[in-house]
Amino acid sequence: MKNLLIASTALVASAGFASADIALDGSANMGVKYNAAAANTTTIHHEVDFGISGSGTTDGGLTFGASLDVDDDNAALGTVNDSEVFVSGAFGTLTLGSVDPATDGFGSADVGFDGIGVDDDAESIKTAGSTADIHFSTTFGALGVIVSAHSTNNDAAVRLSYNFGDFSASIGHADNSGAGANRSATSIQLGGTFGAVSANAFYTDGSGSVTTNGYGVDFGYTMGATTYTIAYGDTDAAGDDADFGIGVAYNLGGGATLAGGVGSVDGTNVADFGINLSF
Amino acid sequence: MKNLLIASTALVASAGFASADIALDGSANMGVKYNAAAANTTTIHHEVDFGISGSGTTDGGLTFGASLDVDDDNAALGTVNDSEVFVSGAFGTLTLGSVDPATDGFGSADVGFDGIGVDDDAESIKTAGSTADIHFSTTFGALGVIVSAHSTNNDAAVRLSYNFGDFSASIGHADNSGAGANRSATSIQLGGTFGAVSANAFYTDGSGSVTTNGYGVDFGYTMGATTYTIAYGDTDAAGDDADFGIGVAYNLGGGATLAGGVGSVDGTNVADFGINLSF
Amino acid sequence: MKNLLIASTALVASAGFASADIALDGSANMGVKYNAAAANTTTIHHEVDFGISGSGTTDGGLTFGASLDVDDDNAALGTVNDSEVFVSGAFGTLTLGSVDPATDGFGSADVGFDGIGVDDDAESIKTAGSTADIHFSTTFGALGVIVSAHSTNNDAAVRLSYNFGDFSASIGHADNSGAGANRSATSIQLGGTFGAVSANAFYTDGSGSVTTNGYGVDFGYTMGATTYTIAYGDTDAAGDDADFGIGVAYNLGGGATLAGGVGSVDGTNVADFGINLSF
Repeated sequence: MKNLLIASTALVASAGFASADIALDGSANMGVKYNAAAANTTTIHHEVDFGISGSGTTDGGLTFGASLDVDDDNAALGTVNDSEVFVSGAFGTLTLGSVDPATDGFGSADVGFDGIGVDDDAESIKTAGSTADIHFSTTFGALGVIVSAHSTNNDAAVRLSYNFGDFSASIGHADNSGAGANRSATSIQLGGTFGAVSANAFYTDGSGSVTTNGYGVDFGYTMGATTYTIAYGDTDAAGDDADFGIGVAYNLGGGATLAGGVGSVDGTNVADFGINLSF
Repeated sequence: MKNLLIASTALVASAGFASADIALDGSANMGVKYNAAAANTTTIHHEVDFGISGSGTTDGGLTFGASLDVDDDNAALGTVNDSEVFVSGAFGTLTLGSVDPATDGFGSADVGFDGIGVDDDAESIKTAGSTADIHFSTTFGALGVIVSAHSTNNDAAVRLSYNFGDFSASIGHADNSGAGANRSATSIQLGGTFGAVSANAFYTDGSGSVTTNGYGVDFGYTMGATTYTIAYGDTDAAGDDADFGIGVAYNLGGGATLAGGVGSVDGTNVADFGINLSF
Repeated sequence: MKNLLIASTALVASAGFASADIALDGSANMGVKYNAAAANTTTIHHEVDFGISGSGTTDGGLTFGASLDVDDDNAALGTVNDSEVFVSGAFGTLTLGSVDPATDGFGSADVGFDGIGVDDDAESIKTAGSTADIHFSTTFGALGVIVSAHSTNNDAAVRLSYNFGDFSASIGHADNSGAGANRSATSIQLGGTFGAVSANAFYTDGSGSVTTNGYGVDFGYTMGATTYTIAYGDTDAAGDDADFGIGVAYNLGGGATLAGGVGSVDGTNVADFGINLSF
């Protein structure tokens, strides 16, 4: 949301319009991926993700907006996706559309320019497979509250976060009752940044029809323009290998970051190296 | 078309280019829909519709432009659609592409934030199922003329409108000869605004292979930021219930409008309530 | 890439961001096409092509960017396509994504507002059917070098160009070894502009599993706002008719050009006439 288009009222002779604005933002990456078990062990990856968003303010001071994504990657054709509409005020922010369940924010860091997937298994339980098309978030001082629900299939989720300053703690619960499912997941997370060092850990307790639990932990160290990350994740599913990796990112300035990661995911050696761009 | 991007020549050092411009505009809505006969009587609706348009002026004073839409709603993926290209001058405006038949503008108001469909049946006859990829509009003083045609299937339509000041009258005819069809429709419409009150009515006489007729009428009353609308529509097709509804819209300012409607469509009680956003 | 959106830092109060920019560019056309052999000899054509691109500069002076296209034409729905990511510096420009093989630039002119296809057969051999997802270009004085490759199927191509001032010469080779293919193509091209006259010719020698050769030649003459083009192309495939055409384009100013062409393609009389718009 960094590049704002300027409403015509200010710069072009077309007065009399509402004062809402439309903005473009974007990111992209490109690089090389290595997967020891794949048919082509080394492949090229690129993706380009732009967002279009509109926003405005009512006479009463409510802010509102809508956004969607225009994305393309290695696939044959790109897509228009992830549309959301929100209204925000002192009460909080209500968003409808392609929203994530309230517990989607639980998780640990991945490593690499595009992510080698260290966190994927560990994070696979946090939403209990639930969905959402309604999302509400608000804050009471240092306490943050997120509630989500799906309007037709009874899925629901909640997350409470408390910001202690240097670190924060969260607890959340997702309930998946859609389409005959009977599964839920409770997650906790602790994370903080202490000078140049960051640390973060989460645990998800699955229950109902699937009882697998997952957890992940990551540490980061920033030295000037360079950030090192170590990440570890696992579930207690039978036969699931622990996943771990180490990554480094170097900020080139201007919105570009060189990054790479190596690790083991599901027992396979994987790595990536590339550049991330932010516009 | 409210938010114009500024050609780089004015603000960034990249001179020497043509003076054409590219603009973004957009709208969105979100809310709740009720349908007494649906499996899920209450559902969430949201949609985000952005438009990209380019425009310019030739040395001789012709204006030209092109546009397309980038939309996403409750569907899994959004779409790029509705591309049009136009050239405009003193002679009128010629548009090629995803244009509507000339009689598409006939109709009556719907009610609700997203429309509960009061007008759908009544308006289903106005184009006689015809299509168009060529559209020409012009004015002779208070007389407006629209002509449309399809380049390969012989469909054609015409509409004449006369603006009397407080009110206007239109007559139009659509002929559908495409793909072996033999159907046409003639429509008339009268509408006006008298202070805070608006009134509008149209009638479509279908002929050829389908002889159903349709008509609709609506009244509006605006009091400050609030507009009330009553709409009624019907066809003389056997077994088709009359459709009617009442709606209210409250302008929140800044491009946001709160709106809702209740009514009966095809014998079913329907309602909606939500917010419309314009960027 | 002519219309640049302005980063919010300069004009709107949202400081502290990276200085990357997002830009929109676009083109469109509309007109009439004639094909003596088609079921509908005369058809309407329109297309609208917008591009979104992001760009920036690292602290060390590297430039980078990413782009994709948002296009729609006569087809039912438009597409998001052609995403690319690049990093550029004194060493050259490295691009990953939906890139063309290095020999894609060989060819001769087409005529008409949308192209009647005079050059299609002649140019069908230049890439030997090869693909690419990696593209590197650089210059050494007047010498330009392009190298492309596909990361997983071993296709590769190279092109060398030398700019002599008024004219330039190129030689290139494409090798298609993907998916069991065994085909290659070597192309040469000479072209120049001498005052109001331009001339261009290329020849492609196909070898391997397909041994067809192709060649094309075109001449242009510009007189004020009007440009005349004559183009000729052929292959030595058995039964392939020579293709030729003559076209004229008139620059209306402001980014609009009126253009048309007539000719014979694969033994069929074809023509088009329309307007090209650039934003």
